[in-house]
This record gives sequence, C-alpha cells and structure tokens, in this order.
Amino acid sequence: MSAVFIALEGLDGSGQSTQCKFLKDWFFNQAKKCLVTKEPTGNLVGGLIRAQLTGMWQSSAEALQLLFAADRALHLEKEISPALKNGIHVVSDRYLFSSIAYGMLDADKHWLQNINSTFLLPDAIIYLDVKPEECLRRLEGDRVGLELFEKKDLLTKVRANYLELSREYKGFHVVDGMRSPAVVHEEILNIIKNCL
Amino acid sequence: MSAVFIALEGLDGSGQSTQCKFLKDWFFNQAKKCLVTKEPTGNLVGGLIRAQLTGMWQSSAEALQLLFAADRALHLEKEISPALKNGIHVVSDRYLFSSIAYGMLDADKHWLQNINSTFLLPDAIIYLDVKPEECLRRLEGDRVGLELFEKKDLLTKVRANYLELSREYKGFHVVDGMRSPAVVHEEILNIIKNCL
Repeated sequence: MSAVFIALEGLDGSGQSTQCKFLKDWFFNQAKKCLVTKEPTGNLVGGLIRAQLTGMWQSSAEALQLLFAADRALHLEKEISPALKNGIHVVSDRYLFSSIAYGMLDADKHWLQNINSTFLLPDAIIYLDVKPEECLRRLEGDRVGLELFEKKDLLTKVRANYLELSREYKGFHVVDGMRSPAVVHEEILNIIKNCL
Repeated sequence: MSAVFIALEGLDGSGQSTQCKFLKDWFFNQAKKCLVTKEPTGNLVGGLIRAQLTGMWQSSAEALQLLFAADRALHLEKEISPALKNGIHVVSDRYLFSSIAYGMLDADKHWLQNINSTFLLPDAIIYLDVKPEECLRRLEGDRVGLELFEKKDLLTKVRANYLELSREYKGFHVVDGMRSPAVVHEEILNIIKNCL
C-alpha cells in the first residue's frame, strides 16, 4: 500500500490549519507516518514569497506566481516526493489550487495552470468551503469598515474560483466548513480512509 | 521615436558579452541613453540562480527554470520596462531564448515557452552563431579530455535549439560570430539601426 498525498485548500479563515493539526494527530494515533507541511514553504524561495505577502517588498502578479511555482517545485523535489517514496503520507496545507484560485484575481487562469502543469497531483484535494463573511468574522472578529467590504468581495471571487476548479480536477472534494471543527474532521477522515 | 529593446543570445564563449560592451560604447558615443543589462540578474532571485549554476546548491530542472522565469519577470518589471518607458534603449545579455535553448536539454519546450509566454518580446533578438568547438576553444584554450567532448555534445544540442527558435520568433537574427569582433559589431549595428 503506497503513501497518499492530500492537499487541504480554502480561503484564509476557513480552518484548514486546524484541520491539518487534527489530521496530524490522527495519523500519529494510528501509528501511520505522516508529513504535515505547508505552502508557501519556509525554505529558500518561500521566504521571498512571505516577505512579499507581508508587504516587505512588491512585485508584479506574474513574478509572484512564478515564485510560488518555483517554491512548489522545490517543495515537491526536496520534501513531498522523498516522503512519499519512503512510504510517508503527506498532508499539505495549501497547494497549487490556492495559487490558481487566488492568482486568477490578477493573472490568466490558463497561464497559471500551465506554470503548475508539471506538478504531482494529490490523491485527494479537500476544499473547506466557508462563506467569505464567516472567514472574515473568524479573522477579524466583529470589526466593520470599507476595507472589510473589499476583502469580502475579493474572497467571494476566490471562492468562486475554487468551486470552478473543483469541477476540473479529479479527487477534488468540497467539504462544508461551516460546521464544527470535529464534524468537518470526521468528513475529511472518511475521504482519506477511502484513499488509504 | 520610442526606445528599442535588444536581446543578445549565444552559447557560452560566443562573444555576446564583448558585443554588449561594444554596443554600450556605441550608444554612449551617439549620445543615446542605453541600459546594458544581463540575465540572470544580480538581484533577489538572480542570486539563487547563480548560486545553483556555480554548484552551491542543486534543484530539479523545473525549479531552476521557474526561478529563471521569476528572475525575468522581476527584471522586466523593475528594470527593463521602466527604462523603455523613459525612452532609454535596453540591451540584455541573454533573455528568454537562452532559458528555452538551454532548458530544452532537460525540460519540455512547450512548458518552457508557456512559462515565458507573458514576457515582452525584444524588437531584435541577435543570436551570435559560433560553432561549439570554437566556443570551447575560447573558453578552455587547447585543453582536451572527455569532459570537453561531453560539453561539445551539449553545446551542439543547444545550438540546434537556438536555430530552431530562430525560425519561430519575429526579429530573430542569426549573426555569424566566427568572424572578428569588429566585423560582428558592424553587422549587429546594421540590425539595430534598422530598429531605431
């Protein structure tokens, strides 16, 4: 039985980091080896990306997306593929679907798919579907203002992009993330058990 | 009259750096503003690439090519495009055609063309055509050995790739680089004068 590769995707605030943590514990309790990892990585190129996301420097959307893809190529080569080859399951908090869904806001979808076309596809892609209002509530509390209206508009577009991708890729599961974390975890486990 | 963008391409040892220097002097003597630049750049991402080319670290061909493309996106955004907008001519020692011709040795040509598909094309692409034996002679002197046979084989493939690209891109000039630097310079000038 070979190792499986799972990607967790979702809007910021959709709870995918929490679900990754639950999965890590579950694999550990089952005595199954699992690498829980994330993108952008904390490595060579990931640092350049995070420095941009936090406003330390700015580039065109294209340069940023090429950096995301380069970071992913290194992530696969240095971490994900070696783990899978050694029978270690891999759960990645975000993967190429995040790049495409967010990247489509200001870059061409087909170009984004092309630059990501050589990468290993996961056995299961789990998209935690949470309404933008709820993501913002979790991230921002009950703060209101123009900035949040703009963010909501943006997240609404990204959510539509994820749902569009869910119809194009095999093994793409849309999981209702509006429910309690424990219930969501159970549904994710059912998906994963079918892959194992 | 708008500024022109020229790319000089060629095998290592084909003399394109010398020709870039000649062009810089010519533009200066004509009192025309010109930015002479090169790839990989000396900036944020270019350093990662050069560190790999000199053996400080290693990655897959794909990761390297995505870094080349990210470096190029930044080069265009931060240096080439602003110069052209300000009426400054640009000469780049290597551009996307190098990535494709060398990259084709171990990556798919269409994928390479796709990841480079959004970039501004030069008004003129000048490929200095020099036989691999002559490039190696210039680079290595009269040293012989197995390593040089392998290098010759590699450069022969890269040369064939450049010549293939010369038939696919508009404004791609193949200049016989086996002649004296001064004669080659004159031919390059004739091409550039037609663009100005």
